[in-house]
Amino acid sequence: VPPEVHAADRLLNAIERRRSPVCVGIDPVIDKLPRSLRAAAPGAAAAAAAVSGFSEAVIAAVAPHVPCIKLQAACFERYRSHGLNRLFALIGAARARELEVILDWKRGDIGISAEHYAAAAFDAGWTNGADARPDWVTVSSYLGEDGITPFLRDGFGAFALVRTSNPGGDVIQRQRLTDGRTVAEVIAQLVARCGQGSVGRRGYSALGAVVGATKADEAAALRRLMPRQIILVPGYGAQGGTAADIRACFNDDGTGALVTASRSVIYAFDPDDADWSAAVGAAARSFADEIGRAVGLR
Amino acid sequence: VPPEVHAADRLLNAIERRRSPVCVGIDPVIDKLPRSLRAAAPGAAAAAAAVSGFSEAVIAAVAPHVPCIKLQAACFERYRSHGLNRLFALIGAARARELEVILDWKRGDIGISAEHYAAAAFDAGWTNGADARPDWVTVSSYLGEDGITPFLRDGFGAFALVRTSNPGGDVIQRQRLTDGRTVAEVIAQLVARCGQGSVGRRGYSALGAVVGATKADEAAALRRLMPRQIILVPGYGAQGGTAADIRACFNDDGTGALVTASRSVIYAFDPDDADWSAAVGAAARSFADEIGRAVGLR
Repeated sequence: VPPEVHAADRLLNAIERRRSPVCVGIDPVIDKLPRSLRAAAPGAAAAAAAVSGFSEAVIAAVAPHVPCIKLQAACFERYRSHGLNRLFALIGAARARELEVILDWKRGDIGISAEHYAAAAFDAGWTNGADARPDWVTVSSYLGEDGITPFLRDGFGAFALVRTSNPGGDVIQRQRLTDGRTVAEVIAQLVARCGQGSVGRRGYSALGAVVGATKADEAAALRRLMPRQIILVPGYGAQGGTAADIRACFNDDGTGALVTASRSVIYAFDPDDADWSAAVGAAARSFADEIGRAVGLR
Repeated sequence: VPPEVHAADRLLNAIERRRSPVCVGIDPVIDKLPRSLRAAAPGAAAAAAAVSGFSEAVIAAVAPHVPCIKLQAACFERYRSHGLNRLFALIGAARARELEVILDWKRGDIGISAEHYAAAAFDAGWTNGADARPDWVTVSSYLGEDGITPFLRDGFGAFALVRTSNPGGDVIQRQRLTDGRTVAEVIAQLVARCGQGSVGRRGYSALGAVVGATKADEAAALRRLMPRQIILVPGYGAQGGTAADIRACFNDDGTGALVTASRSVIYAFDPDDADWSAAVGAAARSFADEIGRAVGLR
């Protein structure tokens, strides 16, 4: 994919091509793999190989149905360099299938350290050639603008963490300021401002936002504060959100959000089924169909 | 270092042994290395080797003078698996010199992903044997308790990000809530609460806090909210903080904080000086002496 195309335009094109704004989150753990793939040998290399083999088959199974995948870095980084090499190889494999790729690593640092992380993600050729780099990464936003802007490189994008759906997040993110805004809304405005200079032809910025799916009224308020952000909505399916709940994350024309499901797709099989990847493909197809209909693309 | 010893007790012991609560931050970039070490060959492997060779010499030079080092993961991760292998080898090398080691990687995720990151840091044997794991890591705190507690494993510790000294941090962290607290204070209280169950014999928790050094009044307020947290104070020296400024981060008895200097120590040489590491050692000694006196340990 040529980096001269703006990251948000590229993602919107891919969504139109597949007629569904969905993303499959790949966050595999050994214990949930099909029984035939679980590592026989102990140790990081064998475990990383098992997790990576599974992920590669998932990528192949979902590629005909969805525009985008999200790889959870932690699942690979736990195997240190063994996992890291596999992770970037998977990024390359997914891009070769014309999938948009989000690297979900939630780095958060400032200045030169943030630039190093941007280099780790986006510099070409370190491990597996020019394509082994994601289209997007996720970043922390608590450190402010200095932690975000180093990731805004031409042709690439970042999703900044605005609101998470975990119970512990409320203690911070729902706190209300003297001026009436919540902490999450402060961050939403920061993200909107940081992304102003990076808007593509189709009206969306290369700086997107992560907004957990569980609270529709909150999502609507955050949507209004970030009209030009693509909102990445994690946790669809397994965490209890419905198609109606996520509608609030989209703009009125049905664009501007990307809904992610993980466990409900990648584990949609019987662990003893030899043809497990067909079940994953079917789950991806039905997920794409459900969300595509909800936003009027099907 | 036996993991049956509580991480905070171990760090306090090391501080007493060296009579100074200081830490040298190792965040090397190629362009600032002694000229003799800059990588001749292009590419990630050569660059990672150069940065790692420099860091190893810095560790040897500062080990007689300071109790602790902090390795900035981003500087190594930018070279992907080449850098990651070097990073964990350095962790092992530093622990072999009886230094306490902080891995500054500021990961922030929840649930199973946070557990994977904790495994990446603290599980033994993946890369370089049992000692190639840090005593402490830094973690993001915006996601709340679910993002922090997975890192609280027996024998290890975490420093949660409470307040950063970069200009962009103010936009979020200094915001005031309706109940009078700042956002940073909300997080400080969260950290104090999360760390309650992990207090060692010497009264400090295995959950510490990162508090930027630039604002003494703010630091004092955060110190009061987190009496049992060891406060990691980054950016001493190069970012303009003085010994008086950082006094507010300590409890009245002169314990409870760890002051980090990076560039003012690791680059304290003429790039053409063959004996550059002696200059680094001298800078570490004088940094330790300055802070040791400021808190009454010398």
